[in-house]
Amino acid sequence: MHVTLSATLAANEDLDRRRRAGQRVLPLGFGEAGLPVHPALRARLAEASGDNRYGQVAGSPALREAAAGYWSRRGLPTEPDLVVAGPGSKALLFGLLLAIGADRPGDIVLPRPSWVSYAAQAEIIGVRPIMVAAPPGEGGAPDPDLVASAVLHARAQGRTVRSMLVTLPDNPTGRLARPGTIRRLAELARELDLVIISDEIYRDLVHDPVAEFLSPADVAPERTIITSGLSKSLAVGGWRIGVTRLNHAPAGWALRDRLLAVSSEIWSSPAAPVQHAAAYALAEPAELAERVRRSRRLHGIVARAVADRFTKAGASVHAPQGGFYLYPEISGFESAAELAHTLIEQHGVAVLPGSAFGDNPRAPRIRVATSLLYGEGQEQRLAALHAEDPLALPWINESLIHLESALTGLASGRAPNRLRMGALTPAHATP
Amino acid sequence: MHVTLSATLAANEDLDRRRRAGQRVLPLGFGEAGLPVHPALRARLAEASGDNRYGQVAGSPALREAAAGYWSRRGLPTEPDLVVAGPGSKALLFGLLLAIGADRPGDIVLPRPSWVSYAAQAEIIGVRPIMVAAPPGEGGAPDPDLVASAVLHARAQGRTVRSMLVTLPDNPTGRLARPGTIRRLAELARELDLVIISDEIYRDLVHDPVAEFLSPADVAPERTIITSGLSKSLAVGGWRIGVTRLNHAPAGWALRDRLLAVSSEIWSSPAAPVQHAAAYALAEPAELAERVRRSRRLHGIVARAVADRFTKAGASVHAPQGGFYLYPEISGFESAAELAHTLIEQHGVAVLPGSAFGDNPRAPRIRVATSLLYGEGQEQRLAALHAEDPLALPWINESLIHLESALTGLASGRAPNRLRMGALTPAHATP
Repeated sequence: MHVTLSATLAANEDLDRRRRAGQRVLPLGFGEAGLPVHPALRARLAEASGDNRYGQVAGSPALREAAAGYWSRRGLPTEPDLVVAGPGSKALLFGLLLAIGADRPGDIVLPRPSWVSYAAQAEIIGVRPIMVAAPPGEGGAPDPDLVASAVLHARAQGRTVRSMLVTLPDNPTGRLARPGTIRRLAELARELDLVIISDEIYRDLVHDPVAEFLSPADVAPERTIITSGLSKSLAVGGWRIGVTRLNHAPAGWALRDRLLAVSSEIWSSPAAPVQHAAAYALAEPAELAERVRRSRRLHGIVARAVADRFTKAGASVHAPQGGFYLYPEISGFESAAELAHTLIEQHGVAVLPGSAFGDNPRAPRIRVATSLLYGEGQEQRLAALHAEDPLALPWINESLIHLESALTGLASGRAPNRLRMGALTPAHATP
Repeated sequence: MHVTLSATLAANEDLDRRRRAGQRVLPLGFGEAGLPVHPALRARLAEASGDNRYGQVAGSPALREAAAGYWSRRGLPTEPDLVVAGPGSKALLFGLLLAIGADRPGDIVLPRPSWVSYAAQAEIIGVRPIMVAAPPGEGGAPDPDLVASAVLHARAQGRTVRSMLVTLPDNPTGRLARPGTIRRLAELARELDLVIISDEIYRDLVHDPVAEFLSPADVAPERTIITSGLSKSLAVGGWRIGVTRLNHAPAGWALRDRLLAVSSEIWSSPAAPVQHAAAYALAEPAELAERVRRSRRLHGIVARAVADRFTKAGASVHAPQGGFYLYPEISGFESAAELAHTLIEQHGVAVLPGSAFGDNPRAPRIRVATSLLYGEGQEQRLAALHAEDPLALPWINESLIHLESALTGLASGRAPNRLRMGALTPAHATP
């Protein structure tokens, strides 16, 4: 097993170290939501501070019913007993990898690039990911034109391929796969007999509130498993709570038994007081719905402003559509690592190289997370959340100026034979 | 993978189901501490309800320093950077199984019987446990007389054996391995080059406050890893918080890196508000030390009273020394499962068969957990905690009468050829 510390969590720890050492760092490396806990959610946690029972491995009935309601309101009627909660959707994804396939885990098709932990989790348990590039201009889904041949090729080599994963909307690209892509993937999953894992933890943070969102569960409910949680939409990543909606089919019930078996032997259940607060949150009371709406707006405004700075500096970047990420390419570097290294060491800008997400290491692409620009403390962050024009807040404006200056320096600091920024195709806004 | 729901957690869910169905059940199946959260700990959780950052994978510096202090006060000077926190010591044990051995996990020597999850976790990741019976009259440690040949035999068959586990004091037997046994195991571990995992989650619940407690870390610090947590001593199992103290040697630092890699990809970190409360608890302020002292006393009194009822009914049982378990044998049954089944179906007494703990399924032994006898609600449980004579409380007394009657019925209900209870060797009190 050659797994190293999760690249995103390592970036977070590196940022802390640099700041403690007095460095000024623009924190674009770590995907933490960067907003305070809503007071109503804090109150729910506090009122459950006496909850000390282990409780059900699947999570409390109240939490599972709330999650079922959450999905039902999104057009996916949900059986509470096909909901399983865990200490983060990351843990649930790991459990699912182990549980899919009755005898032994099978290999999984992942989009390239995709979130750092999918492939790393697979490697921990000896599952080999099959990385398939996203369709041009999209992110978070493997290209339907390439999936069948990749799966058939792997199967011809004797590999067992059981599942395919999509991230809607995507981390690291900030893109939302088109409904047509999802429909085609659902068809392919049927033809190839694959389970689809749909990581929808950023679903409520699609910037355009009327954008069409198609989950594979809408078109292939019998074979789609959704994972979600509160870490992004309600900014409680440190609370560690996730939920999964298993496929509504006989196979889903069998999968549930195996997932609960794995869960019971690895983590038992999510923290009980957190479950109580999460049950409240997933019922989507007005005050929290409003918080999510405001968060989504802020994430969109800042992500687009950052993308704009990259575009102006000649980088190629697709407009972010959800969450708080963008995925620019800056030519003139030999590798993603060189680009990321130059940005942090020479310009104090922390990002992650695309290679951390399984992308081609020679491609000078980076993941830029924008959610730690909202401010240093609770007060600044709340001000950002409630500002009519968050970009006019001095601390956010200064960060954007830092970024502009870094990107200008990046261009001028390169050797003459690398000054190819202007020759890049400009950013294109795909729907 | 043929893992099923953790037997202990399944017992808990079964108990809930039977009670909802109106059955009167004596709850001796599940090892939950059965006491309320101390108000000071509740207050610490509530005051941290704003903590929503992911934080360090290893746990907060405050928590790791508090854990280092906890072990230092027990004669084990501890480097905070060799402490790793996780969502329960169960999760840490799973991470350790994956992390021990640079390339691939190795097989592990387990005492027989031992806690249900050790072997199940091993099976999930394809590690084969080597079950070695505990020395006669002891529990929680493999018999030193049998370990070397078991390991050498496995190695001769090409297996990689990397570790050995002890539980001090033990679940399921309630016994504390003798210092002499631990010393011999430490020597064997050196000779056989094994890492020792010492599960000490019940350490503060050894009933006799002046009993000699020897951790393998006292005698083989270079190769002993301790796991612990607050689930038992402070009754916050549902909060999911554990800590591990890695071996203080160069190998411990390498193990730390691998454990953090695994942790970062499976659960990220324990819930942040829980970490805050745990840091407070591990500093052992007077009010919590007093709570642990009272809990220990109550656990001891009730466990001994229950053991006494078994002894009087002719069962063979070693006196419980720590935690809230005992492990009686009742002859006249064909299997542990038959005994457990008869107890629940005919006498409303929920226990777990010894076979769930890896014991010989034909041996009519059961694990009896006594900590859910303290009462139904917070008020009864607090009364039990503070009672001079908890056995005189009506609800505890009634439970003991229910047990006596069940054990009498068990004897009289058996076919004549099974009436061998009186022929059993009486319970012997080993030190």
